[in-house]
Amino acid sequence: MSYPFATRVQNLTSSAVRDLLGVIQNEDVISFAGGLPDEGLFPSYELEQAYEKVFRSGGKSLQYGPTEGDSQLRMLIQDVLKEKGIHTAHENILITTGSQQAIDLFAKVFISPGDTVLIENPAYLAALQSFHLYEANVIPVQSDSNGMLPDDLEQKIIAFHPKFIYVVPTFSNPQGKLWSKERREALLHLAETYNVLIFEDDPYSALRYTEEEQLSLAAMDGAEKHVVYTSTFSKTVAPGIRTGWITGPGEIIRTMVLAKQAADLHSSSIDQQALYYLLQDFPLQQHLSKIRKEYHGRLHSMQQLLSGVDQDLFHWEEPKGGMFLWVSINRPIDTVQLLKEAVANGVAFVPGAPFFVGKRETNTLRLNYTHSTEEVIKIGMGRLMSAIDTMLESKANVR
Amino acid sequence: MSYPFATRVQNLTSSAVRDLLGVIQNEDVISFAGGLPDEGLFPSYELEQAYEKVFRSGGKSLQYGPTEGDSQLRMLIQDVLKEKGIHTAHENILITTGSQQAIDLFAKVFISPGDTVLIENPAYLAALQSFHLYEANVIPVQSDSNGMLPDDLEQKIIAFHPKFIYVVPTFSNPQGKLWSKERREALLHLAETYNVLIFEDDPYSALRYTEEEQLSLAAMDGAEKHVVYTSTFSKTVAPGIRTGWITGPGEIIRTMVLAKQAADLHSSSIDQQALYYLLQDFPLQQHLSKIRKEYHGRLHSMQQLLSGVDQDLFHWEEPKGGMFLWVSINRPIDTVQLLKEAVANGVAFVPGAPFFVGKRETNTLRLNYTHSTEEVIKIGMGRLMSAIDTMLESKANVR
Repeated sequence: MSYPFATRVQNLTSSAVRDLLGVIQNEDVISFAGGLPDEGLFPSYELEQAYEKVFRSGGKSLQYGPTEGDSQLRMLIQDVLKEKGIHTAHENILITTGSQQAIDLFAKVFISPGDTVLIENPAYLAALQSFHLYEANVIPVQSDSNGMLPDDLEQKIIAFHPKFIYVVPTFSNPQGKLWSKERREALLHLAETYNVLIFEDDPYSALRYTEEEQLSLAAMDGAEKHVVYTSTFSKTVAPGIRTGWITGPGEIIRTMVLAKQAADLHSSSIDQQALYYLLQDFPLQQHLSKIRKEYHGRLHSMQQLLSGVDQDLFHWEEPKGGMFLWVSINRPIDTVQLLKEAVANGVAFVPGAPFFVGKRETNTLRLNYTHSTEEVIKIGMGRLMSAIDTMLESKANVR
Repeated sequence: MSYPFATRVQNLTSSAVRDLLGVIQNEDVISFAGGLPDEGLFPSYELEQAYEKVFRSGGKSLQYGPTEGDSQLRMLIQDVLKEKGIHTAHENILITTGSQQAIDLFAKVFISPGDTVLIENPAYLAALQSFHLYEANVIPVQSDSNGMLPDDLEQKIIAFHPKFIYVVPTFSNPQGKLWSKERREALLHLAETYNVLIFEDDPYSALRYTEEEQLSLAAMDGAEKHVVYTSTFSKTVAPGIRTGWITGPGEIIRTMVLAKQAADLHSSSIDQQALYYLLQDFPLQQHLSKIRKEYHGRLHSMQQLLSGVDQDLFHWEEPKGGMFLWVSINRPIDTVQLLKEAVANGVAFVPGAPFFVGKRETNTLRLNYTHSTEEVIKIGMGRLMSAIDTMLESKANVR
């Protein structure tokens, strides 16, 4: 039979990241494609001990638990947020299955078909996927390396009356961009002036490689809250534990709790309790220093390899944190085509085009530098350069 | 500020079950309200060992994993299904965060606002919650103790062109009903005739207290599949591990995988791998025999206590499995009012009214017998009887 899917399914396409992850798991391909942290740096021993504690404490968390999440973990996250200057009550924190679920539940309670969401361009693929599934009208705002351009943002707020503005202001995916203080202030000012919500997605801020720090929008937010803030332990502890959280005005969080109840009742209470035990005596800051240093070294290596070739071939801006290097090739190369050549050559990346809404820059690619050691980065980048050479040569031959 | 929620949020109400769970966690109240298995019967020791194996095996599952779920676990579930007569490929199995997420993702890919879903009446609250959030037109089909009435079902299929028919044919929630073979066949026949999908929700079939077994609809389904089938480990292993699954035609499962990717990327891979290790050498059938025997004893006790009073006061049908006893009080008592009196008296249940779509039977209640020992059931039922007495007396006084 043919299946009478909902109209929203027309907007459902598999993401390039995901399809790639499928391909490369089975092959001898070096992957700069996924947004993976390095599993060699996960606190496995400490996590093992934390799970032991869960069972030694009587296994209470094997039972059904509250939709909002484990209250001890929520209180602990309240403290984590306080240190970042974000003042919230633990009652206004909802535990989610990674911050992806926070994005999706927020979208679910705000987007009716045709509602506008303003985004940066390019933007995080799986957020776009979620917004499109709720049939949002996704409108990109013009940006430079400091963040959204206030004039264009204001015009689009006036023109489209957006439900919310989705931003990753600290080490964005895919560009690794860090918004300036001025642009953060301008965004907040416009949100207040026009009474628009900001959805701040902050998975990467702990992965900072320079001295430059910016307060989160949530920390800068005024008395009448306009910012809803989500983050995750996926990049600082481990992704497999699937634990993120979201905080914002009580009415919004309570509405999201009801939506989460219908979505999955609650996230794994075993994982939540284990995370709580882990964080009680785990030196998280020390762990973060370690992974920051390691990832920064890898970023440095990858950039050196990019600089080592024809100076004019690549353009990129040095990211100050995060997991990605966003590169433009100064040649008429479509990176979707390049990817096929690259995979045949034993290396993978994500083509830039799918991250764009509207006009796509087809000569761009996203490289992840956190999952491979410097040695592997060297081999993989060699394979990538050789794939580019092959493509440029074949183009030259055609002419 | 006031928040511009999506129109679907108008359909979002907290479930009575959930609000109650909130109340009774903090008080000395015996609860027959939740749908909780007994944590004293969870295989805690074996689970502890399974989590140890996850870490001893290298902690691969701490990393991001595939949206579909752990492939070893999916193959194992394929075997579990085969034993139930359900033949499917592991590629057509999606691991979900409990079967609640399977319900929600299925609803998400099928329901556009205004689409009709046919249901039994009364029906599982959190499924109704999910359908209402996607703005479904939820239409109840007339039933008796053997299942839906084929004539009414056929009329409603013709009249409403439903997207799917949602059923819990084996020990339903809240009624504990077991559909007869004839009614299962009639449902399948109508689904084939009119080309309508059946969504079979089967969380309880392992909790069987008599010899009577019925094949699942998925096992009876014809060559051209009309049944999508979901189940869970929440009742057979432990709910906190939040692992359910769904299987059906490949095109539907693939579409749901994309929806799950946007919803939360994937469920906890740590829990999935632990469950895989647990099931490898855990004597699940033996464990099920043990919990079946224990729960059956508790059901028997609760029924004896109901029979022990004025014979005419209560009406119920003896359930052949599951977790619930569905009781009507043959007096003009609104069980929502009774609940307040009962909680004041130290006992809780779920009033029947919220389980109905349309006309509500306000003299009904759902009692859970799996979470309390026979001793506790005795005390709790005493408190309930006394609350009923108080209400009947106060009514008599008013007259």
